[in-house]
Amino acid sequence: MQESKPELTIVKIGGNVIDNPDALKMFLADFAAMKGNKILVHGGGKIATKTAEGLGITAVFHEGRRITDKPMLDVAVMTYAGLINKDIVAQLQAKGCNAMGFTGADGNIILSEKRKNAAVDFGFVGDVVAVNAKLLQVLIQHGVIPVFCAITHDGKGQLLNTNADTIASTLAVACSNYFNVNLLYCFEKKGVLMDSNDDNSVIKSLTFDTYKTLREKGVIHSGMLPKLENCFNALQQGVTKIGIGSPEMLKGNITYTVVSR
Amino acid sequence: MQESKPELTIVKIGGNVIDNPDALKMFLADFAAMKGNKILVHGGGKIATKTAEGLGITAVFHEGRRITDKPMLDVAVMTYAGLINKDIVAQLQAKGCNAMGFTGADGNIILSEKRKNAAVDFGFVGDVVAVNAKLLQVLIQHGVIPVFCAITHDGKGQLLNTNADTIASTLAVACSNYFNVNLLYCFEKKGVLMDSNDDNSVIKSLTFDTYKTLREKGVIHSGMLPKLENCFNALQQGVTKIGIGSPEMLKGNITYTVVSR
Repeated sequence: MQESKPELTIVKIGGNVIDNPDALKMFLADFAAMKGNKILVHGGGKIATKTAEGLGITAVFHEGRRITDKPMLDVAVMTYAGLINKDIVAQLQAKGCNAMGFTGADGNIILSEKRKNAAVDFGFVGDVVAVNAKLLQVLIQHGVIPVFCAITHDGKGQLLNTNADTIASTLAVACSNYFNVNLLYCFEKKGVLMDSNDDNSVIKSLTFDTYKTLREKGVIHSGMLPKLENCFNALQQGVTKIGIGSPEMLKGNITYTVVSR
Repeated sequence: MQESKPELTIVKIGGNVIDNPDALKMFLADFAAMKGNKILVHGGGKIATKTAEGLGITAVFHEGRRITDKPMLDVAVMTYAGLINKDIVAQLQAKGCNAMGFTGADGNIILSEKRKNAAVDFGFVGDVVAVNAKLLQVLIQHGVIPVFCAITHDGKGQLLNTNADTIASTLAVACSNYFNVNLLYCFEKKGVLMDSNDDNSVIKSLTFDTYKTLREKGVIHSGMLPKLENCFNALQQGVTKIGIGSPEMLKGNITYTVVSR
């Protein structure tokens, strides 16, 4: 009886919006204007790096990937869950949205475990293991607009830095039990591109079959691969629709990529 | 029909507990063990000052009182709403408490306005003007244990630093519409003292009449005066009972000051 479920839109924005106060302001106005139930998931941006530098904390990398040691986790919690999340909540409140900020620890909504594979210890990085959407449903029914940063917890007292795209997709899957979920990934491009040098070569509709073909041809590659694998996983687990495009896609009158099974 | 309301205990802890990881751990174990509905309100502590120093932000004072300029507000939001609040939430979750962290902006629960009196501009400091306890009631009914830091908002997009004692007492008053509220102020003494040099001279019961007498005699003075005025105000506005003492009073087998009308 999927038809009887109410609609829910989950929007994910990345650091490129967070880092630009004007872009963030415009995005939040569009997000506030969106009708219906909604959740916002936001990434980090450069404020964490700047704060770490200011505090004399040196970022540690392994083959280009950041290691989240304890000082860096503290900075992530301060900036993502503190500064950025609360600024977004206050700005949305000013626009009449009853926003409420969350880490995964709050209300035990997103439980993760410290990443353990690997020859490399990436530090305090968590992979999502469970999402409790029941409490979110209650809040949404009471008009609350949850705003998630990309911090989760392991249930044993440890906060963990977590990929914001994964937060968005796992929330979307868990919320599919209660809602028809429309997931929108906002990033710096207008969508998934046929030609990465042509910003206007947006693929308007991407099914799993098209994706497989384009991946084999090397048209879709690099960072787009995990993003799309993530999308198809979410669709297979009950998410209704996924959009990938620029933050302006919230306005609805712009081309973006619709990913579907 | 006050008898028919459920019980709610609101506990406020200050910087002295926050600054000592062992004391905080012990306190959170006691708080987690407390039966029934509960809310935690926490102050700031020295982490904000240390973080500000680390970032090269100089604290500005006027006649011994801190001015909250924009950089200092950002540090307060980072440390109170970020680092401290989320650490407490994660630790309580590990003890089976379904804690959820809040600033006053989240869910628009505590609305304040920038302090405007005065020849002195204290900066981004907010005085509470309204508390919306309805959403808190819903959350508490669903087993949530709200954890408040001392940051509020003005409803126009501005976060404001706010006195944690005031947060606790205004929450207590607003929650009195739905609960019989027991408010516990934990601080570094065992209670209100007859002799500030004798830690064991705890006044076990303090009515408004006793308070007036002791204030006139100069037995109760300085920082204790606004704290107690605050208490009697809250009692007059519907709070059932107020306790003032050390964090150990949560265990129940220790002497502390009970303030009543």
